[in-house]
Amino acid sequence: MMRATVMYGAGDVRIESVPEARIVERTDALVIVTHACICGSDLWPYRKLEHTDTGLRMGHEFIGVVEDVGADVRSVKRGDVVVAPFMWSDGTCEFCEQGLQTSCLHGGFWGGTELDGGQGEAVRVPQADGTLVALPLGRGDSLMPSLLTLSDVMGTGHHAAVVARAGAGRIVAVVGDGAVGLCGVLAARRLGAEQIILLGRHADRIALGREFGATDVVSERGEEAIERVLELTGGLGAHSVLECVGYEESTNTALRIARPGGAVGRVGVPQDAAMPAAQSTFRKNITIAGGPAPVRAYMAELLPDVMEGRIEPGRVLDRVTDLDGVPDGYRAMNEREAIKVMISF
Amino acid sequence: MMRATVMYGAGDVRIESVPEARIVERTDALVIVTHACICGSDLWPYRKLEHTDTGLRMGHEFIGVVEDVGADVRSVKRGDVVVAPFMWSDGTCEFCEQGLQTSCLHGGFWGGTELDGGQGEAVRVPQADGTLVALPLGRGDSLMPSLLTLSDVMGTGHHAAVVARAGAGRIVAVVGDGAVGLCGVLAARRLGAEQIILLGRHADRIALGREFGATDVVSERGEEAIERVLELTGGLGAHSVLECVGYEESTNTALRIARPGGAVGRVGVPQDAAMPAAQSTFRKNITIAGGPAPVRAYMAELLPDVMEGRIEPGRVLDRVTDLDGVPDGYRAMNEREAIKVMISF
Repeated sequence: MMRATVMYGAGDVRIESVPEARIVERTDALVIVTHACICGSDLWPYRKLEHTDTGLRMGHEFIGVVEDVGADVRSVKRGDVVVAPFMWSDGTCEFCEQGLQTSCLHGGFWGGTELDGGQGEAVRVPQADGTLVALPLGRGDSLMPSLLTLSDVMGTGHHAAVVARAGAGRIVAVVGDGAVGLCGVLAARRLGAEQIILLGRHADRIALGREFGATDVVSERGEEAIERVLELTGGLGAHSVLECVGYEESTNTALRIARPGGAVGRVGVPQDAAMPAAQSTFRKNITIAGGPAPVRAYMAELLPDVMEGRIEPGRVLDRVTDLDGVPDGYRAMNEREAIKVMISF
Repeated sequence: MMRATVMYGAGDVRIESVPEARIVERTDALVIVTHACICGSDLWPYRKLEHTDTGLRMGHEFIGVVEDVGADVRSVKRGDVVVAPFMWSDGTCEFCEQGLQTSCLHGGFWGGTELDGGQGEAVRVPQADGTLVALPLGRGDSLMPSLLTLSDVMGTGHHAAVVARAGAGRIVAVVGDGAVGLCGVLAARRLGAEQIILLGRHADRIALGREFGATDVVSERGEEAIERVLELTGGLGAHSVLECVGYEESTNTALRIARPGGAVGRVGVPQDAAMPAAQSTFRKNITIAGGPAPVRAYMAELLPDVMEGRIEPGRVLDRVTDLDGVPDGYRAMNEREAIKVMISF
């Protein structure tokens, strides 16, 4: 048996003994987890999940050491330090070849009732060749927090910035000051944006956002936030907007602060079936793009910047715990005590 | 006085005497209309407009002869045959310079209560230099119907195809078999698409769609239409989808038949405040783009193909009337007797 995080319902997160992770398919790897995270998206079930007797294994961001590989695995070997994206993918299907590994025809999510999650001692990794990326360092390295963000939040912020066409000469607005929004600020600056407007209301997060490159902060909400962004952009709105929350209100704000011809990158998981502002986005020819970030595709581009210290997204991980502290880590993130919690094994 | 089309409410279209069109600003031109159209978008008020005592001047697609120009007009002169886009624009603002004339900071729509509309004997054209394009032919030319579609429907179908990234190697689906949808088929073929799936149910329109390049036709609706498109695309959906209707059902269909990483170009005027399928488009990283087509920007690209007969979008104009026949033209289009009506003065 091994120990892992299991969620049984809203607010009910437990550390339990579960069956030992092991190789099942010839394409699997077995990874001993050394670092993992609690994700903002883990808070959706933490707030809303109905009770389940089976429980759901949790965690989709992790770094670890390869303990064993199946017979067909070629790209990683025992002893490698590896980072996993928040979805696993075969690396060879039509969508993987296009760099959209989150739509892999033979991939999927971690955890749940069928697979191991990252918030546990070990993980069976399906499609190891397509999924894992070996890191050129040892397990104690100080770059670990930043490398860990390549699993999800840094790649997700980058995705929002890319699909919103952030870059030189563009005004970027970032809706949401959570870990993804803050990484979105970092990504926008990395891509060359000069004016970066962060919409958020938490002093600690805003302070980090300014260090990451935000030039303006808007802490109003709703219509007032929209007016304030218009004031900051000569009345026209932002060229690129990153939606990093997922609620209807934040989506409405994001869609309405984009200027005509602008683009909105959605990476906050939408909590509603419909999207607002269908008519105003039409009138203004706004492009709406985004979705689950193909972070596996972005690792090659972002890894050198992390290794050479040009970006330090790991600063969003402002609390560290061991596995036993995970339930309290969920609580702390849900109550906005912590931006994002790292689990060190 | 001159004669023009005025709408007073749903189903209430009249030909009336109105004040003579004349030059007001130094940037105006006065155009004597020779050819105009009734638009599918004119049918929205034809079905829903509440009674108004003032009435609304109608028509936004026209070709005519320049009768006079204001002192500052440089690009057209008396005697020129000109085509007008469905919105007027100054040609010099930030958005015009980007080719997004439908968001011109000093532009607007034809007709209504303030301006002349195209469905009348003459039009005062604001911002003539930015708005009008001179045509290299006389007023009786047989190319007139196709040239007239550059005012709106051909440029609009082209816009949908462009923003949906139609092109070589891509599977394109076109939702709607109206004039815009049919022009979308033509635009998709022009851009190199090989498989073009037309979703429509009217035999005459489908027949023209096949001549324009549709390789498959889907006449089912709702969930059945979605299933049928998936069958035709190896279960994956279309790379590029053109939404050419504007109803919630057609939008839902369009958004759900796009494959992961695909793009939907919206040109049907949305009739609802919310957009469906917010979550499934997110999961699949669908890009949603489009809006009022900057047909003024597309004229330079499309005009040579019309002049040299490579495309014949004027075939969507399957009925011709004089000004007195306009009210019956609205009725015929609304009852699907005609695809699109041309008015010849």
